[in-house]
Amino acid sequence: MNDAYSDLVTRLREISRLNAISSLLDWDQETYMPPRAAAARADQQALIAGLAHERLVCDEFAACLDAARADDADPAARTNIREARRVFDRQRKLPRSLVEQIAHASSSAKTAWAQARGESNFALFAPALSRLLDLKKEAAARIGFPNEPYEALMDEFEPGATVPALEPVFTQLREATVQLLARIRAAGRQPDESILVRNYPRPAQEELTARMAALLQYDLEAGRIDVSTHPFCTTIGGPTDVRITTRYNESFISPALFGTLHETGHALYEQGLQAEHAGTPMGEAVSLGIHESQSRLWENMVGRSRAFWEGQYPSVQGLFPEALGDVSLDAFWRAINAVRPSMIRVEADELTYNLHIIVRFELERGMLRGDVEVGDIPAAWNEKMKSLLGIVPADDREGCLQDIHWSMGAFGYFPTYTLGNLYAAQFFETARAELDDLDGAIRRGDTRPLLDWLRRSIHRHGQRYRAHELVQVVTGKPLSIEPLLAYLRAKYGQVYGL
Amino acid sequence: MNDAYSDLVTRLREISRLNAISSLLDWDQETYMPPRAAAARADQQALIAGLAHERLVCDEFAACLDAARADDADPAARTNIREARRVFDRQRKLPRSLVEQIAHASSSAKTAWAQARGESNFALFAPALSRLLDLKKEAAARIGFPNEPYEALMDEFEPGATVPALEPVFTQLREATVQLLARIRAAGRQPDESILVRNYPRPAQEELTARMAALLQYDLEAGRIDVSTHPFCTTIGGPTDVRITTRYNESFISPALFGTLHETGHALYEQGLQAEHAGTPMGEAVSLGIHESQSRLWENMVGRSRAFWEGQYPSVQGLFPEALGDVSLDAFWRAINAVRPSMIRVEADELTYNLHIIVRFELERGMLRGDVEVGDIPAAWNEKMKSLLGIVPADDREGCLQDIHWSMGAFGYFPTYTLGNLYAAQFFETARAELDDLDGAIRRGDTRPLLDWLRRSIHRHGQRYRAHELVQVVTGKPLSIEPLLAYLRAKYGQVYGL
Repeated sequence: MNDAYSDLVTRLREISRLNAISSLLDWDQETYMPPRAAAARADQQALIAGLAHERLVCDEFAACLDAARADDADPAARTNIREARRVFDRQRKLPRSLVEQIAHASSSAKTAWAQARGESNFALFAPALSRLLDLKKEAAARIGFPNEPYEALMDEFEPGATVPALEPVFTQLREATVQLLARIRAAGRQPDESILVRNYPRPAQEELTARMAALLQYDLEAGRIDVSTHPFCTTIGGPTDVRITTRYNESFISPALFGTLHETGHALYEQGLQAEHAGTPMGEAVSLGIHESQSRLWENMVGRSRAFWEGQYPSVQGLFPEALGDVSLDAFWRAINAVRPSMIRVEADELTYNLHIIVRFELERGMLRGDVEVGDIPAAWNEKMKSLLGIVPADDREGCLQDIHWSMGAFGYFPTYTLGNLYAAQFFETARAELDDLDGAIRRGDTRPLLDWLRRSIHRHGQRYRAHELVQVVTGKPLSIEPLLAYLRAKYGQVYGL
Repeated sequence: MNDAYSDLVTRLREISRLNAISSLLDWDQETYMPPRAAAARADQQALIAGLAHERLVCDEFAACLDAARADDADPAARTNIREARRVFDRQRKLPRSLVEQIAHASSSAKTAWAQARGESNFALFAPALSRLLDLKKEAAARIGFPNEPYEALMDEFEPGATVPALEPVFTQLREATVQLLARIRAAGRQPDESILVRNYPRPAQEELTARMAALLQYDLEAGRIDVSTHPFCTTIGGPTDVRITTRYNESFISPALFGTLHETGHALYEQGLQAEHAGTPMGEAVSLGIHESQSRLWENMVGRSRAFWEGQYPSVQGLFPEALGDVSLDAFWRAINAVRPSMIRVEADELTYNLHIIVRFELERGMLRGDVEVGDIPAAWNEKMKSLLGIVPADDREGCLQDIHWSMGAFGYFPTYTLGNLYAAQFFETARAELDDLDGAIRRGDTRPLLDWLRRSIHRHGQRYRAHELVQVVTGKPLSIEPLLAYLRAKYGQVYGL
């Protein structure tokens, strides 16, 4: 390490601080901001985005990055220099004005999306989306890409991901999903899902949320749980301020229950990053795919497992005597694992969920290539839903307006969800092999062994490894769809008696 | 107006945007921030303070300010140039490192203060306070002052205020207060204040808060009401995002009731500023003294008036049947106007309140001059409380740790509270003379005539006038203690039958 490296770390931390402030502006916008503040907030977001960008792409940063040296024996410093270089090389291609325009347009588009979704009218969102899409196309062209513009955007969320690498995986997964879905339908026994849409009073749901977060060891001295339309996890300055949101529907228990387990999984990753490296790549998550693996692992592999509910069901049943008093553990567990093609991604079952992602993956690529015009999105969405899931949304709200992502300018983000599902299954298979009686611990409500394993295998590394390297290091194998398929076949074997 | 002026406005708006972001960081720190985030938040605050400062004192700003010209016929442009010059001249004397150190030290000191107050132990706060005081002394020395260092700090909150101008006013007020207090004590009839410390359930207090905010026409589409230890009002980017906090004590109705009226008064001022001038001095409040006049006017002149409660008491009584069912309007009105020297400033009656300010005014001047050491504050505080109010705090919590201000580095802020009381009485006297049957409107719960009067007389002017000019323009007279004394004598004449 040299002086230039120390200077680099100081600069990275200042940029990270600006990003943390941007996260607070976002968090506030999604939770508490008064509606009339939207225009001022867009200006504030644009300013911070511009400042962060300016600090990254300036000549002083470039000089410092060129001069920074790390000892071979210091993986943290090597990681920080490598990743600073990657982000610098990407961002320097974007003029500050474009970065500010994107920040401004996405802050405004979120407002337009919320209104359009409220009225289930895509036309209200289309102008803001067009504007943002044009800006993102310009960004993609400037950044460059190996095969198609979509890759330039996807790279922001999953560094190194390419269409040729993803497409065959998605195709295999799609085929295997369709086959398994056919077997499930042929089984002729469907769990009674109606028990999940009974009356679940909000105060008890809030208690459930708090209990689940505590069970998973989410540190609320360094976190919060609030309410937003679209649940999320955000980090506002290192592992000491990691917040999640959830949502409550008094006639449907799943959004709060699984939403909280999901977002808590994200929060555990962020809280497990090393505080000493906060504000540098070594103290940051690898990629959104790896991030999603942590949320999926807790939501699905743990939170929909038989062992988990053998331990937790009595207390949850006690919270909702009216809804669950007459429901057996077995019936509850089957209901939360029912497979049924449905309209809303975030409420989809584990199997059909990936088909929702493939719909978006294909649509987004078309939007970026210019094959799909903004005005055609509702029709194109409905057509893809029909061909992949066999169902057609009744309106835009349960169709192409359901997700917040495009309003945030986050094109290329969706594939990371399916990558997360794949990584999660592969990590969980390894954890199960390496840990003694993992199911027993989960049954006892003892999440410590699994969390410790995740912390030492994944969290503490920050960005030391790229996603594909981390999968290899942790599981000894490259990414594969087999662990997820094996997991799904085993689960649905039990649920549907296949 | 010329191009340089347009450039100046752009620059002022960018700085204002950074200040708005700083306000959000503060708001979050006081309302929702997880405790372990304190250190990261201090770093974030320091960064934003440094950026705002850098943008104000840079050569480009100086050049643009020098070249900016306004037409004589454009009072907004003249105001913006004059006030930009004032703030620039002040801030350029402070190096960025000092500004960042102050922001960092005050963010940290707030945490130390909260802990010290929780444990009622001033020693836990002393080191952070010493550090901040040293930084503020350095700032005062750099800024310069006509007579004593305290003025350099006071000037930030009440531009142009000096000790020779304030001291005789405070002395007159103190003498008149002591005389009136003696007459009240001699009257031998004390209202029954115990009715205010009955059981007031929180849900009903929340409903009361909402009703009072609505009655005063606080626009919650451009605002929020949250909860914090120390209630405040903050503006996060112009009149479209003006938030207040309040607090709830289930065995004491006054904090939520009068705290909400008070903070709503502040919020009405901010929401009444002209949106087209947001981010420039013409769209900002004149001074903290004028700001406080707006909160005091609604809290006291309106909110403790007989007319107000003649209209509102039945509905408030209905909210608290257990506490107020057997309490007459007259008894309630007397209780909320009882005079009794007490320990806590924010709970003080209108008469003795100003003695609390004089305690702080004298102590702060001593701290800045170096006559009062940080270690001596608890003893000095208690001594002054004894000599001015005749009572001695039992511990630091009800003594020198009660206020958040010093932990924010806000030395020189307290005098603006008494100035606010004086301005409020003087404005209200004029409003009463100019409006037709003001008491009748207040009795009917019609706050529109008074709010309209405040909007056109005060709010819409932004910083067009300095505080002393505004008082002259609005009331036709210079600042005087007579309107406040006349108001207090009339009120206590009724309450105590003087």
